[in-house]
Amino acid sequence: MATKFEMHHHIKYYECDSSGHPTLAMIVAMLILASEADNDANGVGLKRAGQYGGGWVIINYEGNLAEHQPVKGEEVILGTRVRAYNRFFVIRDFWVKDLAGNYYAKVSGTFVFMNLEKRRIMTIPQEMIDTFQMEETKRIPRLEKPAPIDDQTGWPTRDYRVRYFDIDGNRHVNNAHYFEWMMDVLDGDFLRNYQVVKMQIEFAHEVRYGQTVTSTGSLPAQDGNLMITHHQITCQGEESARATLYWKKR
Amino acid sequence: MATKFEMHHHIKYYECDSSGHPTLAMIVAMLILASEADNDANGVGLKRAGQYGGGWVIINYEGNLAEHQPVKGEEVILGTRVRAYNRFFVIRDFWVKDLAGNYYAKVSGTFVFMNLEKRRIMTIPQEMIDTFQMEETKRIPRLEKPAPIDDQTGWPTRDYRVRYFDIDGNRHVNNAHYFEWMMDVLDGDFLRNYQVVKMQIEFAHEVRYGQTVTSTGSLPAQDGNLMITHHQITCQGEESARATLYWKKR
Repeated sequence: MATKFEMHHHIKYYECDSSGHPTLAMIVAMLILASEADNDANGVGLKRAGQYGGGWVIINYEGNLAEHQPVKGEEVILGTRVRAYNRFFVIRDFWVKDLAGNYYAKVSGTFVFMNLEKRRIMTIPQEMIDTFQMEETKRIPRLEKPAPIDDQTGWPTRDYRVRYFDIDGNRHVNNAHYFEWMMDVLDGDFLRNYQVVKMQIEFAHEVRYGQTVTSTGSLPAQDGNLMITHHQITCQGEESARATLYWKKR
Repeated sequence: MATKFEMHHHIKYYECDSSGHPTLAMIVAMLILASEADNDANGVGLKRAGQYGGGWVIINYEGNLAEHQPVKGEEVILGTRVRAYNRFFVIRDFWVKDLAGNYYAKVSGTFVFMNLEKRRIMTIPQEMIDTFQMEETKRIPRLEKPAPIDDQTGWPTRDYRVRYFDIDGNRHVNNAHYFEWMMDVLDGDFLRNYQVVKMQIEFAHEVRYGQTVTSTGSLPAQDGNLMITHHQITCQGEESARATLYWKKR
């Protein structure tokens, strides 16, 4: 495995929902912060990537969150390391820990390097591969995928117009918004009483400013000792993202 | 004037819009972070305020922003101090500076202490007044108000449903969202090409989860060497917020 990278982060009140804990959307946003800082520290940050005409694009995440979650004002450790890669794919592990080393979240993600103009996958520049300081992986591990979706009868559905301020400092719709669109169709009482403890999400077609996405999600159902919800975001008839979320009573 | 409080803050990519600079919404969110940290440092944070059954509520802001704004990744200084107060009102000054001491933003805000259950203004607890370490102000300065709004013919208008995740870790609709609702009705090209350099905003009725607000804003017009826009947020026929924004070409 590659060298790990860690950084400290203070949880802000505006990164938390009404429970006083960071939202899943913000946790994922923080993890991306860690991977960018890791790349920056290795001299292959966004700017250098841009000189290759490319940028890192996330394909999917799988993750587990502890029942006990950080609170606003708390200082946490955000960490990441490359677990595996080949010429086209990188698997990154991510974590959020408290200062004593207890895990709040463990997430893995698959990244590709994309030509941002042609929107086409590129081979990863050798300069970036060198920073991983490890051998190419023969078999890239496959992350757990969200369940396929078939019958959506009775699923609550809402439309969301991509707003100007949904485009972040990286000039894309922040992936975090997909989680907000997905979870916002669920009932407020459910969101207040349950927390996500496990998730799988897969991103397909990117959405753009001014487009309207449709978010649909299943009614929460029992799944072992957890509750499960299935989610889909579509835009102009194409799937933009699909997710399975597992919930536990707070 | 009271003792100043300052803290360092790293600008995150998710606090920035596509220009790579923090949004006005996030700047205001950061300033609230500074005032909460100031109160915490004085032992009269949100928890202590809650023991009085109350919390600080913002009535209005006036502010100026420099042409040169911080960029994502940058470390800035957030500062605040109480400038004036009486039994019911506190005027706080806020600033964002670079590490060399140059101002990115100077903002002032009027706060009241509110009984959060009865939604009624309370006298400020003496314990909190003591932390200001200054005499009561005879004449509370009045901040610049947004211009009154009369004819809204031809103004672009959009509806926004208050989403679950618009309620932040302080259990209220984060004031930052008002700026997003206000600015989102403006044309994308205008937002890309102009930046806010001056603003006045006034908050009236609070909005709640599940309600739908209507945001309406004037078409940008010349005002001296700046552009000006007028904004109003209404909810169920009542005004929730009103603002005047002044813009300069980037």
